[in-house]
Amino acid sequence: MTENDIKFMKRAIELAQEGMNSNAGGPFGAVVVKNGEIIAEGFNRVTSTNDPTAHAEVTAIRAACTKLGTFQLDDCIIYTSCEPCPMCLGAIYWARPKAVFYGCDKVDAAKIDFDDQFIYEELDKEIGDRNIKFVQILQKEARVAFDKWEEKEGKTEY
Amino acid sequence: MTENDIKFMKRAIELAQEGMNSNAGGPFGAVVVKNGEIIAEGFNRVTSTNDPTAHAEVTAIRAACTKLGTFQLDDCIIYTSCEPCPMCLGAIYWARPKAVFYGCDKVDAAKIDFDDQFIYEELDKEIGDRNIKFVQILQKEARVAFDKWEEKEGKTEY
Repeated sequence: MTENDIKFMKRAIELAQEGMNSNAGGPFGAVVVKNGEIIAEGFNRVTSTNDPTAHAEVTAIRAACTKLGTFQLDDCIIYTSCEPCPMCLGAIYWARPKAVFYGCDKVDAAKIDFDDQFIYEELDKEIGDRNIKFVQILQKEARVAFDKWEEKEGKTEY
Repeated sequence: MTENDIKFMKRAIELAQEGMNSNAGGPFGAVVVKNGEIIAEGFNRVTSTNDPTAHAEVTAIRAACTKLGTFQLDDCIIYTSCEPCPMCLGAIYWARPKAVFYGCDKVDAAKIDFDDQFIYEELDKEIGDRNIKFVQILQKEARVAFDKWEEKEGKTEY
């Protein structure tokens, strides 16, 4: 843990409080750092923007990608005031930063009624056993788009 | 599988092709349905908008929530041309629709090099064993924001 790590995590925690105090959403903040500088900040905006995906990490990742003009966070570090939920963890893997520092963990989050653990457990279940009903239909028809993607020339892969 | 299920899934597949053909992103489409009507549509826009979170499901969920003026998709059904990745699955659990219909599955997705399986496996690992480095720091300092959330009056919970 370096001086910079402490500084950036403190900023993420500060953002968590700023977001909460301004009634943007839950008490979560995040920053994205590249080359020792903060390039984007975010806090939870779920309830104020009616966007269930507007968690601190997603908000910060989107802002960082916009700033960098890319959909990949190469060589970036994310500092988040709380361990990412499964959605944010997925977003982090798609964005591919080199590291993530987090403050609170999912046990702390569960104590204030943000129960990420439930979603982690649902992900581990067979798709037919989940709490939300998942049904596969028209697989053959849907594959046509995938076949066309394979044949497509000049596509941007990711 | 009803006539409506077929109609809505066909629209999701059509959107997958529209998005791909317009170079918005990968071959994925989704619609959100409430009371037998499509209230929002989306296709993958990752590469065109430099947003790694702009998967079809996330895009459709955000649009549906904006339209409904809420952060919860009560009584809604999502039709997506492909089984949701872990990020989208997390987004779905936060949005809480009543059901999800999907066309292709993650095996089909892996065949065209969208390897969601890798992320599913990473989620199952202990946090210290993951491919991206995760480090917990300043937990005590971060908990202060959570304590303040607990004490906060008039907060919007979710």
